[in-house]
Amino acid sequence: AAPGGLPANAKPPTFLLRARVWAALFAEFLGLAIFQIYGGSANDDVAAFGNGITLCILVYATANVSGGHLNPAVTFANCLTGHISWGRGGLYVIAQFLGAVFGALIASGMIPESDIGGGSGPGCFTHTKGTVISKSQLWWWETIMTFTLTSVVYATAVTKPGHGSLAPLAIGFSLFASAFVGGPYTGAALNPARVIGPAIVFNCYWDTAFVYIFAELFGGFLAAVAFLPLYGFGQFGSLFNTSIFSWLGMSTPKS
Amino acid sequence: AAPGGLPANAKPPTFLLRARVWAALFAEFLGLAIFQIYGGSANDDVAAFGNGITLCILVYATANVSGGHLNPAVTFANCLTGHISWGRGGLYVIAQFLGAVFGALIASGMIPESDIGGGSGPGCFTHTKGTVISKSQLWWWETIMTFTLTSVVYATAVTKPGHGSLAPLAIGFSLFASAFVGGPYTGAALNPARVIGPAIVFNCYWDTAFVYIFAELFGGFLAAVAFLPLYGFGQFGSLFNTSIFSWLGMSTPKS
Amino acid sequence: AAPGGLPANAKPPTFLLRARVWAALFAEFLGLAIFQIYGGSANDDVAAFGNGITLCILVYATANVSGGHLNPAVTFANCLTGHISWGRGGLYVIAQFLGAVFGALIASGMIPESDIGGGSGPGCFTHTKGTVISKSQLWWWETIMTFTLTSVVYATAVTKPGHGSLAPLAIGFSLFASAFVGGPYTGAALNPARVIGPAIVFNCYWDTAFVYIFAELFGGFLAAVAFLPLYGFGQFGSLFNTSIFSWLGMSTPKS
Amino acid sequence: AAPGGLPANAKPPTFLLRARVWAALFAEFLGLAIFQIYGGSANDDVAAFGNGITLCILVYATANVSGGHLNPAVTFANCLTGHISWGRGGLYVIAQFLGAVFGALIASGMIPESDIGGGSGPGCFTHTKGTVISKSQLWWWETIMTFTLTSVVYATAVTKPGHGSLAPLAIGFSLFASAFVGGPYTGAALNPARVIGPAIVFNCYWDTAFVYIFAELFGGFLAAVAFLPLYGFGQFGSLFNTSIFSWLGMSTPKS
Repeated sequence: AAPGGLPANAKPPTFLLRARVWAALFAEFLGLAIFQIYGGSANDDVAAFGNGITLCILVYATANVSGGHLNPAVTFANCLTGHISWGRGGLYVIAQFLGAVFGALIASGMIPESDIGGGSGPGCFTHTKGTVISKSQLWWWETIMTFTLTSVVYATAVTKPGHGSLAPLAIGFSLFASAFVGGPYTGAALNPARVIGPAIVFNCYWDTAFVYIFAELFGGFLAAVAFLPLYGFGQFGSLFNTSIFSWLGMSTPKS
Repeated sequence: AAPGGLPANAKPPTFLLRARVWAALFAEFLGLAIFQIYGGSANDDVAAFGNGITLCILVYATANVSGGHLNPAVTFANCLTGHISWGRGGLYVIAQFLGAVFGALIASGMIPESDIGGGSGPGCFTHTKGTVISKSQLWWWETIMTFTLTSVVYATAVTKPGHGSLAPLAIGFSLFASAFVGGPYTGAALNPARVIGPAIVFNCYWDTAFVYIFAELFGGFLAAVAFLPLYGFGQFGSLFNTSIFSWLGMSTPKS
Repeated sequence: AAPGGLPANAKPPTFLLRARVWAALFAEFLGLAIFQIYGGSANDDVAAFGNGITLCILVYATANVSGGHLNPAVTFANCLTGHISWGRGGLYVIAQFLGAVFGALIASGMIPESDIGGGSGPGCFTHTKGTVISKSQLWWWETIMTFTLTSVVYATAVTKPGHGSLAPLAIGFSLFASAFVGGPYTGAALNPARVIGPAIVFNCYWDTAFVYIFAELFGGFLAAVAFLPLYGFGQFGSLFNTSIFSWLGMSTPKS
Repeated sequence: AAPGGLPANAKPPTFLLRARVWAALFAEFLGLAIFQIYGGSANDDVAAFGNGITLCILVYATANVSGGHLNPAVTFANCLTGHISWGRGGLYVIAQFLGAVFGALIASGMIPESDIGGGSGPGCFTHTKGTVISKSQLWWWETIMTFTLTSVVYATAVTKPGHGSLAPLAIGFSLFASAFVGGPYTGAALNPARVIGPAIVFNCYWDTAFVYIFAELFGGFLAAVAFLPLYGFGQFGSLFNTSIFSWLGMSTPKS
């Protein structure tokens, strides 16, 4: 099964299929771990750079291995539109969540005064600069920003013609732009794994964490909905056209 | 009819023509809405990033759907040089204006203390940092900056050879550079839709709004004039060579 | 004659040759004018962005018309290595100087309190942030920075294989990086036209202007020297292999 | 022997082999010298730009000459995975160290109050902004950041398909992102040559210099280990498959 996001140009023989799946999962795991360490450690003044440029380079690093999703909302949208199987997508999301938790653990060791379970720590979206906003405003900011990010993923990396090797740049810049604008209001998470990782490790902001997560998944859903009339379903067909094989992430692409 | 700005590489059958027109209008509408939300919300310190990088990613997102105009001045210039029909161009401009108004409305709900009709709000180009300038100075800043932006659109996206998938980056960077330099003087609008959207929703700066708008259209006109001797008219011919069919945006490209 | 810097992919018939020369000169003139307005107006805090990103977009705008030199030091180096004829190069330099003077004049009208001949104005490299440096230190900063810029021009745009449509980005980023580092010491001019334009219009820093200019030309010379053993002479041959025709900028490329 | 990092597309005849080796060594030497001058001189506020964007343009400038390593940790990893011979790699590292020392010497002359052997100077990673970290935390920051940088080098420049002319951008952005995040903790060296150059010239931070260096080499080693299962050994085979010829950097590629 080819990655959902960016094309895996290498065509491995069948017996390598499992190895490539594991490589993809490792890439998503490690990508999220580094994303969490870098993005979470950036202080407020440079948070937009520390997150946007970091996403850019990590998508470059993983694009040809896993498709460079690095975001459960992006993977969810790709499952909905049939550009990745639900099975592989599910494994990606697990790898992403584990990577974010792992990254937050590593960060707790690398950054002074960041204690596990301490109620706050690097990467917690606890407080925001600027004016306080309501939970429904938080919902809309994260929805619209994740919609924008996922739309850029579709337009540059999923569809043909996309924008080739410029796609990782455009995707990273989507978070970059969002962090400048929405950062003061929500911290600009745009990524359920980045939300849950530090929440578990540092035991922080459980009152709003799920607002972030569901808003981001909803943003991904909206991008999938906007995308379908334009380009149709991917190789894994509609939502309901998934066999037990594809659920296991082992199905071969039809084309 | 193919989009005027960037090439629409997909070649749909005739019966899809209308669907693609609607997709293009939807892309211009939604693009302007997000552009208004992002660009208008950015505070002064990060306005150049919040506008330049946002335009960059939105052109990436819409380039293969609508041509990624996202600016009535750019559409106007493309109509003048025959790279888009006046009919399709007119529909684009309407979609752009509606998108900006819609975006400003959404922003009023997402940002605290931004009341509809309140006289000021996110995205109003009301006051500027730095020294106050006269209306004629405002005119020239907006004219020259929009000329620069539109020239980059022509040189990278409209003509062949352009700069392919680098075009959206160069276009976004044109606003980015302009915002650093002209931002303190005019706020660096460069876009009639971005001017009129918040003006209507927040009832602000009506004393200068039309200086901005006409200066920007004049800048687009100058870029079209500078462009014509170099590359000639586009597929829709000269200003006067438009039939009722092309007016309706339904004409098929000759080549 | 094809432009020296970036390739002119369009192959015009012979009778268009003169028209293309004029287009190239117009592009260099207008490019320098906008470069002077943008780069000179940027205040110290954003000078690196206002100059580096501006050069980036202007090279994108002019690359396929004139080769996107926009710098007498770059043109001088290209003449030395035979990638542009001395005649065309000389006309380029005249256009660049006139463009910078024109841009400084326009800027004096667009920016309050910038009087022609007033002794200071937007774009004068009069004073620097940080520690004062000696004239010989100034010489070396401008030499090394211009060497770096011109080397990037050679490596990305002049030689084959270069870096195609990424060349304007790399060239702009060369000034961008230089402005962050050398800006506090010299203002990071790297461009004789940008030095002489405001000096003439605002009658400023005549005591150091020629240190800048000769250091920059020397930096271009060093880049040409470093380049020659790697790639050899261009189509216009060595320094001494120029006929009266090539002096007039009218010679046709041999290949 | 072809460069290890980016492909040397030009195919010189055998008798030019030595000349190209010398050109590559000169490129690595000069690249590090300019990298040291630019990156070391950047004050803390702009250090991320002054280092990340500078690396970006220097990789563009040297990619087609030497492969654009510009970092002993990257060269070490390429030796481990067989993408450059140990002989050529060793010569690269010597050129890189000499370049950094040379650059620091030049910088001492260009920047006021930076005395040779004075105990501090431009480019010394002596003190850090923010909270003080332990030596083991320093180790992990430099290891993880150099791992990230080297992984991006592999994913974009070494493997096929990589990301072509976008590779230098992604590589430069890797340092850019690292400098924003890890800069306050370690200064974000990521490069043994950049560590040793100022240490020798300005006689500074010998207590931690080797923590930096070994952490960075370890980061390169980890990237090589992560890379091997994905893509296998390069043309120079495994670690132990090196003849005396390849040690001399004179071996011809097998394919």
